[in-house]
Amino acid sequence: MAFDFGPLFPHGLPGPAAKWTGAPKYNFTGGNNDPDAVPLEDLIQAAQSVLAREGRTLSHYGLHSGPQGYRPLREFLALKLKRDAGVVCSAEDILIVSGSLQALDLVNGALLAKGDTVIVEKDNYQGTLTRLTRLGVNAVGIPLDQGGMRMDALEAALADLKSRNVRPKFIYTIPTVQNPTATILDEGRRARLLELADLYGVPIFEDDCYSDLIWDGKRPPALYAMSRSGNVIHIGSFSKSVAPALRVGFIVAPWAAMSRMLALKTDAGSGALEQMVLAEYCAPHFEGHVPELRKALRAKLDTLMEALAEQFGTAAEFDEPKGGIFLWVKLPDNVDTLALYQKALASGVAINPGPEWSTDAAHSRSRMRLCFASPSHEEICEGIALLAEICRKEFGVPARSGNIEPRA
Amino acid sequence: MAFDFGPLFPHGLPGPAAKWTGAPKYNFTGGNNDPDAVPLEDLIQAAQSVLAREGRTLSHYGLHSGPQGYRPLREFLALKLKRDAGVVCSAEDILIVSGSLQALDLVNGALLAKGDTVIVEKDNYQGTLTRLTRLGVNAVGIPLDQGGMRMDALEAALADLKSRNVRPKFIYTIPTVQNPTATILDEGRRARLLELADLYGVPIFEDDCYSDLIWDGKRPPALYAMSRSGNVIHIGSFSKSVAPALRVGFIVAPWAAMSRMLALKTDAGSGALEQMVLAEYCAPHFEGHVPELRKALRAKLDTLMEALAEQFGTAAEFDEPKGGIFLWVKLPDNVDTLALYQKALASGVAINPGPEWSTDAAHSRSRMRLCFASPSHEEICEGIALLAEICRKEFGVPARSGNIEPRA
Repeated sequence: MAFDFGPLFPHGLPGPAAKWTGAPKYNFTGGNNDPDAVPLEDLIQAAQSVLAREGRTLSHYGLHSGPQGYRPLREFLALKLKRDAGVVCSAEDILIVSGSLQALDLVNGALLAKGDTVIVEKDNYQGTLTRLTRLGVNAVGIPLDQGGMRMDALEAALADLKSRNVRPKFIYTIPTVQNPTATILDEGRRARLLELADLYGVPIFEDDCYSDLIWDGKRPPALYAMSRSGNVIHIGSFSKSVAPALRVGFIVAPWAAMSRMLALKTDAGSGALEQMVLAEYCAPHFEGHVPELRKALRAKLDTLMEALAEQFGTAAEFDEPKGGIFLWVKLPDNVDTLALYQKALASGVAINPGPEWSTDAAHSRSRMRLCFASPSHEEICEGIALLAEICRKEFGVPARSGNIEPRA
Repeated sequence: MAFDFGPLFPHGLPGPAAKWTGAPKYNFTGGNNDPDAVPLEDLIQAAQSVLAREGRTLSHYGLHSGPQGYRPLREFLALKLKRDAGVVCSAEDILIVSGSLQALDLVNGALLAKGDTVIVEKDNYQGTLTRLTRLGVNAVGIPLDQGGMRMDALEAALADLKSRNVRPKFIYTIPTVQNPTATILDEGRRARLLELADLYGVPIFEDDCYSDLIWDGKRPPALYAMSRSGNVIHIGSFSKSVAPALRVGFIVAPWAAMSRMLALKTDAGSGALEQMVLAEYCAPHFEGHVPELRKALRAKLDTLMEALAEQFGTAAEFDEPKGGIFLWVKLPDNVDTLALYQKALASGVAINPGPEWSTDAAHSRSRMRLCFASPSHEEICEGIALLAEICRKEFGVPARSGNIEPRA
C-alpha cells in the first residue's frame, strides 16, 4: 500500500501544484522575453572565454568572490547603476541573488513577521502580493494614477497608520515601469516619496527590475540614489534585460540591512556559471544590446495595441506604456477577468486576471495584464482575436467586430 | 543622519553576517572540490553546443520544460539513478533544484512545522542541523557505528517517541558516505531501516549527495529503490560530482509529496544555463569523469591520512573512508575543537569543529571534520603540520613530533 504523506503536511501548506501540461498556445502571461532578442552569439562567446580563463574556480562555492557573488558582475553593476540610475555604490554594497524573486524573499525575510503591515502600490506584481499573503503580512494598497503611486494617498495612509500606532515595515514600490500599470514615478514624486518615508521613519523597498526597458532610455534617478538617509533597499534583475531563465538578480542595500539578508542566504551562493557568463557578456555588450531589445519590445507593443483596437475597439482601455513588457487593460465593468481567464485558458489563451494583480479585487475585477514580449507578432494578433471572441461570447463585449467602435 | 534598520528586524532574525575577508590559506572546510578535476574542456564544449542549439529558449522561464526543470537533465538523471542506484523513476518524478540545499528547504518546508520532531544521524551535516534549529524542530540524534546509523538505537528511539505519542515527521539519513562519518549503510541495514519506517509510519528523507564518490564505484541500492511503500524522498546533487559552484541538485519523490514541494518552489525555476550545460555534458561524459575524480580524491585522502599520522600520531583517530571528501577525526578528550577552530582560523587553518556537526555536543567536543578535496597535496601537508602545532600549543597534544607515537 502506498505511503500516505497527507497527515504529515503542516497546517497552512499551499495546495499541491498541478502537473505541467505544456505552455498555452497564446501566452500573454509571465515575464518571458523575445526569443529573437536573446544575444546568443555574444553569450556563447562569453561562456567560452570566461570558462577558459576561470572555469576551474567552479570547484569552489562562491568562486573566489565570497558569499556576495561573482565580483566582476558586482563591479559591472556598480558602474551600470551609477551611469543609468545615479546610484553611487561599490561591489561591497551589492549582493547577487538567484533572480529578483530571491531578492523579495531575502528583503521580506529580514524585515517582516506575521502581523506586520507594509505599504504597496494598489495594482501590483502578483509574486509580491502572494508572498505577503503567505507571510501573514497586511498590505495597504495605495492607488496609482498615470504618474504612478499617488503621493496624497500615500501621505494619508501613513498618517492613518500612525494614528493607529502602526509603523509599516516598508513602502514597496516599482517606481520605474510599474508592474502592472507601466507607470513611471517622476523625479518630483520620488523626492516627495523620500520625504514622506523620512518623516514617518519607514524604509523604501525599491524594485527596479524593468528600468532598463524604457523606450527612450531616459529614466529618473533611482530612489536609492536620491535618498539622503540611506533608507532604501534597491533590487534589480537581468531577467528582463538579458534572459529570464538566467536566474540572476541583485540587491543594493546599506550594510546594516545587507548583513542580515546575507545571513538568510543559506544557499551556498547563486549559480556561478550564470554569473560568470553574464559578467563576461555585460561588460562589453550590455549597453549596445538593450536598445535593440527595446526596439523589438516596442514593436510588439504596437502590434498588441493595434490588435486590441481592432478587436476590442473602445471596450479595451489602456494607457500607452513608456516601456516594459506588459499592458494593463480595462475591460467593460461587466467583464469578470477571473472568469475570462478560465474560459480563455481552455481555448489556449493565457492572460493575467486583474484580481491576482491588485490589493483591491473590486477595482481590478474587469482589468487584465497582457505581456507582449514573448509571443510573435502573428501570435499576438491571433491570440487577441481569439480573446475578443471568447470575451464576446461570455460577456457580450466587445460588440461584433464589424460593429465595433474604433478607438479614437 | 543614517536610517536605523535595527528596530524593524523581527524577533529571532539570525545575527548579521560578517564581511567576507577572503578564504583561509589552508581550508579544510566546505564541500569545495579539486580545481584540477573540473572537466573544463568538456564543459566548454557542452556550453557551446547546447547554447547554439537551444539558447533562444533562455527567453522563457523554465525553458520549454516546465517548472520541474530542464527535461534532458531529468532524463539523464532517470537513466543514471536506474544504473547506479536501482531507482526506477521517470523525468516526471524528478524536480531540479538550486543545489541540494534548496532540496533541504523544500522537503523541510513541505513537512515541518515548529515543534515537530525528526530523527537524524547523531553526527550530521551542519546545514541540516542549523535548518532544523531555525525551524524550531526537535532533532533526535541516532548514534552511528562503522556501519552507519545503528538500527537498534533507531528502533529504540522510534519506540520511545511512540510511547510519548510523538510521530516523527521523517527519518533524515545520508546513507551512502554519511556526512561527516563517511560510513555506508549496507543493504541489510537499509532493509531494516525501511522495515522500521513502515512499522512506525515514518517517511525517510534520503540525502544521497556523496554517493557518486565511493572509491570502488560500488554502492548499495538507494533506499528510494528498495522502498515498497513509496515512503522515501530522495535528494542528490551535481555539486560533488561535477562542480560545487554549479548550483544544481534534484529531488525524486512520489507526486503526493512532490506536488507540495513544487508549490513551495516560487523561484521561477533554477538557473537554466547551468541545467542545460550539465545535461549536455553529463549524457556523454559523466560516467567517464567520475572515476577520474574519485582517483584524485582518493590520492588526497591518502595525503591527509599520512599527514595526520605523521603530525598527530595516535592523537588523531579515524576510520578510513570508503569514499567522499571528508574525514571525521577524533582528537584526545581534552581537546575542545571549538576552541581549536578559533585558534587555527587565526593562523589561516580552517576546520569544522565537531559540535557544529552533531546533535550531541559532548560526544563531538573533541572531534573535527577535515575536507580534503580542495586543498593541494602541499597545502594538506603544510596545513596539518600547522594544525598540529596549534593543537599542541593549546592542548598539549599531540606530543612533540620527534616523540610522537606512530599509528600502527
